[in-house]
Amino acid sequence: MAKAPSRTTAKRKAPVKAKAKPQTAAAAHPVSPLAPRSFAKLPPLAGVRLATGAAGIKYKDRTDVLVAVLAPETQAAGVFTRSKTASAPVEWCRAGLAGGTARALVVNSGNANAFTGKAGMDGAQAVAQSTAAAVGCRAAEVFLASTGVIGEPLPAERITKILGGLVEAGAAAGWMEAARAIMTTDTYPKLATATAMIDGHKVTINGIAKGSGMIAPDMATMLSFVFTDAAIPAEALQEMLSAGVKSSFNAITVDSDTSTSDTLLLFATGKGARHPEVRTAADKRLAEFRRKLEAVLLDLALQVVRDGEGAQKLIQIDVTGAETDRAAHRVGLAIANSPLVKTAIAGSDANWGRVVMAVGKAGEKADRDRLRISFGGHVVAEKGERAAGYDEKSATKAVSGRLVEIAVDLGIGKGKARVWTCDLTHGYIEINGSYRS
Amino acid sequence: MAKAPSRTTAKRKAPVKAKAKPQTAAAAHPVSPLAPRSFAKLPPLAGVRLATGAAGIKYKDRTDVLVAVLAPETQAAGVFTRSKTASAPVEWCRAGLAGGTARALVVNSGNANAFTGKAGMDGAQAVAQSTAAAVGCRAAEVFLASTGVIGEPLPAERITKILGGLVEAGAAAGWMEAARAIMTTDTYPKLATATAMIDGHKVTINGIAKGSGMIAPDMATMLSFVFTDAAIPAEALQEMLSAGVKSSFNAITVDSDTSTSDTLLLFATGKGARHPEVRTAADKRLAEFRRKLEAVLLDLALQVVRDGEGAQKLIQIDVTGAETDRAAHRVGLAIANSPLVKTAIAGSDANWGRVVMAVGKAGEKADRDRLRISFGGHVVAEKGERAAGYDEKSATKAVSGRLVEIAVDLGIGKGKARVWTCDLTHGYIEINGSYRS
Repeated sequence: MAKAPSRTTAKRKAPVKAKAKPQTAAAAHPVSPLAPRSFAKLPPLAGVRLATGAAGIKYKDRTDVLVAVLAPETQAAGVFTRSKTASAPVEWCRAGLAGGTARALVVNSGNANAFTGKAGMDGAQAVAQSTAAAVGCRAAEVFLASTGVIGEPLPAERITKILGGLVEAGAAAGWMEAARAIMTTDTYPKLATATAMIDGHKVTINGIAKGSGMIAPDMATMLSFVFTDAAIPAEALQEMLSAGVKSSFNAITVDSDTSTSDTLLLFATGKGARHPEVRTAADKRLAEFRRKLEAVLLDLALQVVRDGEGAQKLIQIDVTGAETDRAAHRVGLAIANSPLVKTAIAGSDANWGRVVMAVGKAGEKADRDRLRISFGGHVVAEKGERAAGYDEKSATKAVSGRLVEIAVDLGIGKGKARVWTCDLTHGYIEINGSYRS
Repeated sequence: MAKAPSRTTAKRKAPVKAKAKPQTAAAAHPVSPLAPRSFAKLPPLAGVRLATGAAGIKYKDRTDVLVAVLAPETQAAGVFTRSKTASAPVEWCRAGLAGGTARALVVNSGNANAFTGKAGMDGAQAVAQSTAAAVGCRAAEVFLASTGVIGEPLPAERITKILGGLVEAGAAAGWMEAARAIMTTDTYPKLATATAMIDGHKVTINGIAKGSGMIAPDMATMLSFVFTDAAIPAEALQEMLSAGVKSSFNAITVDSDTSTSDTLLLFATGKGARHPEVRTAADKRLAEFRRKLEAVLLDLALQVVRDGEGAQKLIQIDVTGAETDRAAHRVGLAIANSPLVKTAIAGSDANWGRVVMAVGKAGEKADRDRLRISFGGHVVAEKGERAAGYDEKSATKAVSGRLVEIAVDLGIGKGKARVWTCDLTHGYIEINGSYRS
């Protein structure tokens, strides 16, 4: 995900308190208290060969390039930022998806190659061509993603210089190394895996992601790459991916800001267990695969929001009783993006009046007197006023832990949605208010 | 403006560093460094009698009730929050405006009377009826506004108890006292005045306002009350007021949050210099009055944003070259509401990449390669990349002072807009993350 400012070198040397000691990437900030207790162990995936390298694009003493070489005829699908100032790699990928097949993915951290003009597109092309030459495919079959500083020219030659070696067997890497190589301000690597049966044949889904500021929904996502060894045509993949982001990557927000580089790609190598041919997303034999794909997407999305800049608490917001699901989603995001709600939660303040305010500003149909708000199951407001059974101690307890559950029933329809965010703390200001260089 | 949390009593006793020593209201926080150097001196206004009192609604040792008694046949206009969870006083005023005339305004601080159910409306009615009895008018001619905690029952009897005395000559007050009585988290009182000629006759416009968090545009405004001694019918007043808020109160944002209580009222007593009758807002003899009214509204709006919670810098954003004025306004607000832009400015970081990002997420037509961004007149980005003449020192200097000027030319049309915001600092988190108690 593109962040205009980088961190200072001094800060990068801050002590790392990762539970799993990072081997190839040093976190700039202490590991989020919301980090998973352990990392998912991703199995090898037939048709995907990973390699990471240190190109020295911006960081020192860490990997910053990931190459995934994919089996011939790998099918691809993608969802991207809706930003009108999208990065060169995003434009490159959009064009590449028209072909439907992929042979390689190259990701670099440290430079977003965004707002870099013609030189930016030239750089993207150079990386793609260099990779294509090493893999033996068309440049259009190479997918690209870049994350880091906006507006700095991409030192493409530093990447192309090491690409040949990475594509060769020499630098094979596992999923954990892959997840680490794409980190920027992330405080931990993000991985998820699942298996699914397609007509009695087991297939695997592996995914990695990075965050962790400039994250808002409805604009695709930050960077996330999901791979499966199932054999599913590009069109069906795209349909399942587009459906899956709605309740995962499009249902999280850290700060309402949207990156120029948000990219989510899904690759299907078809090199796993041989299952009968499936052609469309509607095929019932894909039902379990769809469920598991959505679970992987949600798992990764939640890992991203748990690593929101400065996050101390994960906030889960359930909206029910809205006019439509879409209206519920918008009300949920109005609450999730409200700085006043987020700062109140940070201060363990059961300030339900701010939730009322956020519902009121969402622009969706709402009726003050039908609204019911609960914190952690404790009803704090209903019938247009503070709930009769309101208990300050219970309400405060509900907003004091690492997970805060807010439920809002609008009482006017059947629309519902669940969204997630994190609290807004001094850490966010600290991270984003420090000078770039 | 309604803020769910109040400040603790301890905090209210923090040292006040106001340039003009507060006499009736103690500021909860140090006076904003962006406060005006001196306060406007408002002359008495024919047809308006002001009184303030201490009802002890929530605060101690300060005034918290303002009563303005207006001459018979005073014409009224208003703009209110668009919140779907509006407060009882907002609903009361909306109903009252239908009559077109006003005889009194009663404002209390310390309690927003929002989300207080039937008891809230009963409280509002009690205050209006009590005032009407003392003034000798209909309850519908009494306008109300409340600002403070959301969801707490309004102790209406504390207000009605002192109303009679306030309406009588006993507690006459000046404009400064009036502005102080309506403060909540404001660090300084907000006043503005102007005179205008209507067909050769001088009339006066006096206005007061309060902020200073939960402030976002397109939802009317926080609390502001403007009075004139001109004789202008309600319909014309309303037209001028609605037009005037677009480039003033609707062009400022502190935190993108919108109050349940935002209220802007304009009263014309008709007791000043006797000018020829004017009937419509389009009357050319009102041209200067309109200009001066807009100047007063803008002056008050800027005082509000200069007192944004935690504000250290005023940020002025000019957007030109947009498809329409409306598009320019939306792009301006996307920049103004971006936490990443606001934290960068707080850190004196000339992080133009974040402005690119905000333009990209605004959802309005934009072309990366035609975009030109300047900080304080220094072009930092154009033609899809960092400007050829970019100078880090100049750019940094431009974002290091109290006033930061950002100019964005989209290069695709003639639409333009100017909006204002403040930076996002630790102060905002501190103020809004502290417990209500």
